[in-house]
Amino acid sequence: MAGDRTAPRAEKPRDPAAIKAVTEKLAAAFGNRLVTSQAVREQHGHTLTWIPNQPPDAVVFPQSTEDVQKIVGICAEYGVPMIPFGTGTSLEGHVNAPSGGVSIDFRDMNKVLEVHAEDFDCVVEPGVTRKALNDHLRDQGLFFPIDPGADASLGGMASTRASGTNAVRYGTMKDNVLALKVVMANGEVMTTARRARKSSSGYDLTRLMVGAEGTLGIITELTLKLSGIPEAIAAGVCPFPTIDAACRATILTIQSGIPVARIELLDPLQIRASNAYSKLTLPEVPTLFVEFHGTEAGVAEQSQRFGDIVTELGGGPFEWATKPEERTRLWQARHDGYWAARHLRPGAQALATDLCVPISRLAECVNSALRYVDELKLVAPVLGHVGDGNFHFSPLIDMDDADEVRRAKILLERLTELAMSMGGTCTGEHGVGQGKLKYLRAEHGAPALDAMAAIKLALDPQNLMNPGKIGSL
Amino acid sequence: MAGDRTAPRAEKPRDPAAIKAVTEKLAAAFGNRLVTSQAVREQHGHTLTWIPNQPPDAVVFPQSTEDVQKIVGICAEYGVPMIPFGTGTSLEGHVNAPSGGVSIDFRDMNKVLEVHAEDFDCVVEPGVTRKALNDHLRDQGLFFPIDPGADASLGGMASTRASGTNAVRYGTMKDNVLALKVVMANGEVMTTARRARKSSSGYDLTRLMVGAEGTLGIITELTLKLSGIPEAIAAGVCPFPTIDAACRATILTIQSGIPVARIELLDPLQIRASNAYSKLTLPEVPTLFVEFHGTEAGVAEQSQRFGDIVTELGGGPFEWATKPEERTRLWQARHDGYWAARHLRPGAQALATDLCVPISRLAECVNSALRYVDELKLVAPVLGHVGDGNFHFSPLIDMDDADEVRRAKILLERLTELAMSMGGTCTGEHGVGQGKLKYLRAEHGAPALDAMAAIKLALDPQNLMNPGKIGSL
Repeated sequence: MAGDRTAPRAEKPRDPAAIKAVTEKLAAAFGNRLVTSQAVREQHGHTLTWIPNQPPDAVVFPQSTEDVQKIVGICAEYGVPMIPFGTGTSLEGHVNAPSGGVSIDFRDMNKVLEVHAEDFDCVVEPGVTRKALNDHLRDQGLFFPIDPGADASLGGMASTRASGTNAVRYGTMKDNVLALKVVMANGEVMTTARRARKSSSGYDLTRLMVGAEGTLGIITELTLKLSGIPEAIAAGVCPFPTIDAACRATILTIQSGIPVARIELLDPLQIRASNAYSKLTLPEVPTLFVEFHGTEAGVAEQSQRFGDIVTELGGGPFEWATKPEERTRLWQARHDGYWAARHLRPGAQALATDLCVPISRLAECVNSALRYVDELKLVAPVLGHVGDGNFHFSPLIDMDDADEVRRAKILLERLTELAMSMGGTCTGEHGVGQGKLKYLRAEHGAPALDAMAAIKLALDPQNLMNPGKIGSL
Repeated sequence: MAGDRTAPRAEKPRDPAAIKAVTEKLAAAFGNRLVTSQAVREQHGHTLTWIPNQPPDAVVFPQSTEDVQKIVGICAEYGVPMIPFGTGTSLEGHVNAPSGGVSIDFRDMNKVLEVHAEDFDCVVEPGVTRKALNDHLRDQGLFFPIDPGADASLGGMASTRASGTNAVRYGTMKDNVLALKVVMANGEVMTTARRARKSSSGYDLTRLMVGAEGTLGIITELTLKLSGIPEAIAAGVCPFPTIDAACRATILTIQSGIPVARIELLDPLQIRASNAYSKLTLPEVPTLFVEFHGTEAGVAEQSQRFGDIVTELGGGPFEWATKPEERTRLWQARHDGYWAARHLRPGAQALATDLCVPISRLAECVNSALRYVDELKLVAPVLGHVGDGNFHFSPLIDMDDADEVRRAKILLERLTELAMSMGGTCTGEHGVGQGKLKYLRAEHGAPALDAMAAIKLALDPQNLMNPGKIGSL
């Protein structure tokens, strides 16, 4: 392979003269859509976890693909990094600017461009959020199923290969992006694919860009697969005597082929947090939030089969959310789980962990992880998209307590080792950013990292596209 | 981007001295697992359509990943091309050796290595065929749904991003490969991912290798997603008054969200061919072959809803295949459609066309295509995985009739233009090989082709991995 690519690329040094020149050119081109105030710059670095904030030098607000091409041209001329920015809700430092540079905020590119209801697809700008898209689609009986906790932008969701509660049935962003328009490092506008449902025509550039976290190019348009709003929906809450029983109910549900649409685990601590934050009144026991989609008869059958499994494992009784507004409240509480957890310990920082293991190992993995948390005397509520074998601990850390910080770091290492030992991944849905970069070698091995670095070098030879993230190894 | 990559790469010249050296080294290492007879070499070039046969210089039969590494090392040392070979059933000249080189035949790497029934996945060698895998899995209540017409090898199916009749419900190879082991051009063994159901960890190397047609590396192991054998299956045959009515029934079925497992169109000419070849007795009218999977109640409900659509469009009556052996016979006939078509005109060559368009354009696309066939006075039965908007014409061509060949070429151009004008692709499932290479620029545009060439150059700088196919532009 190319000789120079396996060597680690040095951290790009910040070049103040180049940044000054770029900022002036962008100001001339974009007027007040170029912002350099300290406050706005800091908002465009990472803000949500204990990863330190590394603000960009400037923030620019494009309104079109042509604007993005212009920005890329100016930055490339001076060798200044570019970091695409959606809503800033990623959890691993994806939007930090370790080498400075320009944050490209897609706030103003928030239009739904086309809806092809008859083909179950749509074309959107990257700044459209998942809730905005679903509001737009509702009248047509369609929805976009991918739902990370935050009301994230679709460009950001594609970039991090996001998923969420519906992934167990509807897949992740990998499965629901049909095509992308991407401004490449050389300023060219690449279209990755066409609207056909499937294609065997050439390398899968769509999937290469999904999950690339802005390191290979900047997404300026997405063609998304949509789903029909189900004829019938049943959602409910089901308590279990133990975490183990809840996990085993999940495993049996998946293994029985029940096409559950959502199946989410909350541990007693997370229930306490969500009761307080989202004004619920659930008993503080291990709990599954579930939802079934289908025809009236189909949903009834799924619910009944799931009920049989629950009974077998000593769970129940169910509490069904029959009205749409009750369902909305339930899932909003689930989506607010991270914020609820943070309110358990005001002033503490939160870590976002994100293990995903084969479903047969789920109960064992959660149990081991709970034991680690206990041994390390940490406070860490558990939430999970357990139907995928994916779950999150959110350790709440007093950053002034050096020993607690040390123990939290040990937890992160142990959780990753645990996932690795079970054929799992260090991130089911949050992505790599800065926080998970150090685990990639253990997870993928050197040849895969070499290939990633070779691809990064081939498509972004100056290393200007979100440097210090994937591919900069 | 890298300066030299957008220039077309010259066809690799054949180097007889290098080929001689490689053949001798391989013979020393592999004994009688290295074959150079004319007959075997010709069998390892393209044989199935009008694309001329271009045999490799030698054929080697590895038995392990280490064997493949050894082959890659020897070929790379002398700059000799390598072409992976499964069952040779691809239709676009994928296995031809335009620059000579070594065909790597996976006949002996045909073991199912692991079945994780509790996780619905398995690990196989690339020479396992889809039928062999399903025979292996049947006792465990599992199956692998992807079914191209031929009993292809799973390595080949991954390489061409194959699909088939079940894709409308179960997706394509893109959706059903969890991870791959790949010998790269530098001899390293890359593992693309782990067994977890989803991951956001790094570039999606799995999807990059799926559909790469052996141009980026050689697959030596596949981890595949499996599905549970449905509790109930109903399959049937349904006649329609017109092609248009059959297409419109398909569109309505998909738009109504009926989770049909298979929905296949055969035109009257194809029915005549299949009646003769597969000993069926169907009326020679436009016909849909359908299948529903689910619970007993679910299948009954799906069948009934589909029945309502059929009635609305003047189709029917259904003929249901209730016994498993009747179903097997029905689908075997469908899978043998290409061979049945060829028997319509013995001695003629067949072209394999493969359009895929958004479902809303299906009826219009098939009708236009039929008109072209008519205008060009060609004989071309129609078969299609119409639930995906994917269909095939198989023009049967007398290669000694220059004017007929000319008209067939016009048809190919027109069909591709038609798909392009409807947001479709020039290949839904067959892949690019040599036959579709010339359409990639129209379909993807220069920036996407530039990116493909850059990736190819980055991962295979000597252009030894199946040269003259994708990425060699």
